[in-house]
Amino acid sequence: MPTCVLDGPKIEDVEIKRTLVREITDALEKAYKLPRDAYIVLIKENKAENVGVGGTLILDREKS
Amino acid sequence: MPTCVLDGPKIEDVEIKRTLVREITDALEKAYKLPRDAYIVLIKENKAENVGVGGTLILDREKS
Amino acid sequence: MPTCVLDGPKIEDVEIKRTLVREITDALEKAYKLPRDAYIVLIKENKAENVGVGGTLILDREKS
Amino acid sequence: MPTCVLDGPKIEDVEIKRTLVREITDALEKAYKLPRDAYIVLIKENKAENVGVGGTLILDREKS
Amino acid sequence: MPTCVLDGPKIEDVEIKRTLVREITDALEKAYKLPRDAYIVLIKENKAENVGVGGTLILDREKS
Amino acid sequence: MPTCVLDGPKIEDVEIKRTLVREITDALEKAYKLPRDAYIVLIKENKAENVGVGGTLILDREKS
Repeated sequence: MPTCVLDGPKIEDVEIKRTLVREITDALEKAYKLPRDAYIVLIKENKAENVGVGGTLILDREKS
Repeated sequence: MPTCVLDGPKIEDVEIKRTLVREITDALEKAYKLPRDAYIVLIKENKAENVGVGGTLILDREKS
Repeated sequence: MPTCVLDGPKIEDVEIKRTLVREITDALEKAYKLPRDAYIVLIKENKAENVGVGGTLILDREKS
Repeated sequence: MPTCVLDGPKIEDVEIKRTLVREITDALEKAYKLPRDAYIVLIKENKAENVGVGGTLILDREKS
Repeated sequence: MPTCVLDGPKIEDVEIKRTLVREITDALEKAYKLPRDAYIVLIKENKAENVGVGGTLILDREKS
Repeated sequence: MPTCVLDGPKIEDVEIKRTLVREITDALEKAYKLPRDAYIVLIKENKAENVGVGGTLILDREKS
């Protein structure tokens, strides 16, 4: 605690995840002022057929 | 925003996901009256060994 | 199970919540084909100062 | 409803999931006093490259 | 990490929350075998007008 | 989409929320490379009697 749950598309490169988690934790630390080890970040990767925006699957948006 | 996160069993047929996302977005649009592109729907698919109902895994419920 | 969690702004009118829950459950029932009582819908209401879109709080977007 | 969503590392052994779901449902039942079938537990398994603690991926913590 | 998020009705008595959190953490500890301080439990309290079961608000179910 | 859901203690000062949302969105933008308006951040504020760490409510940890 605090926790941060991210839902987005797949991130292929672990280096990007590494930077993302570090930068989000930096932002959390400034806001909540708790010991750094308290912050948890979860990255959830979603398939394009499992996300709808504006009533249309991302899968179908990408095709058009 | 608004977002809708669905947790259920696996849906094999993408056409069912397509309809589900469209119909849920229709319902959200009527309730919140925001531009259609604002609505996000996430479908989360769960394995039968990762869901418990009444203290028993779905995996074991299906067997009995 | 299945569950549906909605995050949006406050809905003042309970009648709108009533319709929203019924219509979403209709959509879920068509997709998952489980007994109607299995479907759970949670409505989460968020204050404009607790939601950011595009890096800006909704609170500040509404002002401008 | 009530629902319980667990986010943790992968659990290899289904027997451990079986016990976990039963014990959590026991605890929920004592607290909420609803019929046992009302309780839903979802186990979410996360890869070590998708979880950050203290700004560092679990993947990298395990290496060091 | 691991985290456990509970969504249920309001719990009036803090003593019940105290017991609930302790018992769920006991169950998590047996399953994941991590240091006890790693486990986070969040209790989310929901109003009867914000939860639908079987397409009907709990608010309306309680009346009937 | 992508969405970021934060669960932490109450933040009294809106200016801190403003900065938090902007900095998290900056980090998301670098990672996902999507249009800035696509990113949604939700701040969830939790009472000390609704969060357990290591099996103990934050409420009780603060007292001791």
